[in-house]
Amino acid sequence: MTRVSRANIPILFTLVLSYCAAAAAESPALPSWNDGDDKTRIVEFVRAVTDPRGRDFVAPGDRVAVFDNDGTLWAEQPLYFQYQFMLEQAKKAAPQHPEWKDDPVFQALAANDRTALQKLGVKPVLEFLAVANSGMTVSDYDRSIRNWLATSKHPKFQHPYTDLVYVPMQELLAYLRANGFRTFIVSGGSAEFMRPWAEKAYGISPEQVVGSQQEVTFEMKDGKPVLTREAKLAFLDDGPGKPVGIYRHIGKHPILAVGNSDGDLQMLQATDAGDGRRLVLIVHHDDGEREFAYDRESQIGKLDKALDEAQARNWIVVSMKSDWNKVFAFDK
Amino acid sequence: MTRVSRANIPILFTLVLSYCAAAAAESPALPSWNDGDDKTRIVEFVRAVTDPRGRDFVAPGDRVAVFDNDGTLWAEQPLYFQYQFMLEQAKKAAPQHPEWKDDPVFQALAANDRTALQKLGVKPVLEFLAVANSGMTVSDYDRSIRNWLATSKHPKFQHPYTDLVYVPMQELLAYLRANGFRTFIVSGGSAEFMRPWAEKAYGISPEQVVGSQQEVTFEMKDGKPVLTREAKLAFLDDGPGKPVGIYRHIGKHPILAVGNSDGDLQMLQATDAGDGRRLVLIVHHDDGEREFAYDRESQIGKLDKALDEAQARNWIVVSMKSDWNKVFAFDK
Repeated sequence: MTRVSRANIPILFTLVLSYCAAAAAESPALPSWNDGDDKTRIVEFVRAVTDPRGRDFVAPGDRVAVFDNDGTLWAEQPLYFQYQFMLEQAKKAAPQHPEWKDDPVFQALAANDRTALQKLGVKPVLEFLAVANSGMTVSDYDRSIRNWLATSKHPKFQHPYTDLVYVPMQELLAYLRANGFRTFIVSGGSAEFMRPWAEKAYGISPEQVVGSQQEVTFEMKDGKPVLTREAKLAFLDDGPGKPVGIYRHIGKHPILAVGNSDGDLQMLQATDAGDGRRLVLIVHHDDGEREFAYDRESQIGKLDKALDEAQARNWIVVSMKSDWNKVFAFDK
Repeated sequence: MTRVSRANIPILFTLVLSYCAAAAAESPALPSWNDGDDKTRIVEFVRAVTDPRGRDFVAPGDRVAVFDNDGTLWAEQPLYFQYQFMLEQAKKAAPQHPEWKDDPVFQALAANDRTALQKLGVKPVLEFLAVANSGMTVSDYDRSIRNWLATSKHPKFQHPYTDLVYVPMQELLAYLRANGFRTFIVSGGSAEFMRPWAEKAYGISPEQVVGSQQEVTFEMKDGKPVLTREAKLAFLDDGPGKPVGIYRHIGKHPILAVGNSDGDLQMLQATDAGDGRRLVLIVHHDDGEREFAYDRESQIGKLDKALDEAQARNWIVVSMKSDWNKVFAFDK
């Protein structure tokens, strides 16, 4: 064992501090991140896994980073944006479905009756939305998504939803890729809702978007290939589904994972438990002024168990308020 | 409309011929492909979609090429190699499963009784193999696959199975990537069986391998993440499943597709039917001496409807016998 005499401790401390400060200062890649422990740990991790002479070196092919989307890369309040879209799709389709008018789920959704919705629970609401968003071809659905994103605005910020991406996370994604990482989205939302804009917003191409999957069937119709959305969820990429999605779709163990809610817990645990050096981050929504403030009690993006786990395992808990000097691109 | 006088036709013909010859001659990237129409069409297609001034130009991000695996990138006779592996796994596990000894599927498999197997049909055999190959963790299964591949030999060639990859296809994959394509495997086999060797054999990384999926469940066990294979197929990436797998996993329309059997038909049709220039190839196993000769009557890799479709649609039917001057790396 190496022994450190007490006299040397202040010197070591100064060395460590200046090393950390240097590491942070040398990363103009993360300008929206305030200097401090969290930024330093990120930069220090990337330096460690990319240093070919270091003991934590990871070959470029194995530098896989996974990111949750809702609440991690863009906002998710007051309602997951995809739910908002699906809800509006259902309302638009209602005239063609007179049978819905007696459905308690549709009644509650149409009236925006939060008490009734809470009583019903999440599952029947999701099932109704899945049915209401089925039957069309994937091309038609893609057009609806693009059209909705182009014409809708977020109720609080009055900006298009795609403006609600977090600048510091865009920087982190770019910084990781510049250091040889491959970056993936692993979201409870569906890939088809993210793909139309993820490349522009995050630099993440369609095949690097992993999400929940609707059942889809294929047929050739008048010589044209047609994929139709069925009224059934094929795979839920949330909670324990996330490590399964990663296994199926990526086939490598991530060495870095970022999430913001209990739905990310298993992905973060699985990443953290791998051999070799790992980095796990949780985005903590503690900035009610620039964004939203919520955690343990929230219906959307509930962060409870994962926050305890973060504290127990020394994961980085990113404070939006104090770690980020900018949240959205439209912030002054 | 442009008119061509009859007198000019021979001149035009010569020009076209010499252009094609030049195109083929300039592609030292495909040395195992004999000069001729098929090679010329491949090279001409790649030239067309990569020429930024041409009308067929395709942006690099949209240059997606999909390849079937069994019978397209490596051999598949006398039995899909993955079936051979699964069968041996089942036999190895039999002593722990005394209940199997009365199972007609297991009896037929153990006795290698082809008549009985044909009578039973494909489905119960596949279902039995799926059950017999379940219950273990994905890490244990991965180890079994690697161990089997390292120690088993192909009955005809007496080489490890991973030596049975086709050199001309390795060249084609590399040639496409050198021209800005992203290359994917889209196979009826399972991704986990291909991933351990696909990167070395084809230069295709794990997340670019799309295949059939076993149901998998996640849990944390003594602080370790554990994924366990369940006795249920979650997704069959074959026939009409292939365009679904492409939609879910890649999220872009391929512009080039290669297959060799009726199980690839829908993937080839869907690729061909897209807007813009497309290239579709079928590998025709017509070389009984260097490999195997089979098509319409074969139980494994049956090529019947897709061969008719290829002729009707002018797809390239690659003759292994006359298009390839080399099949395997161990060929003299």
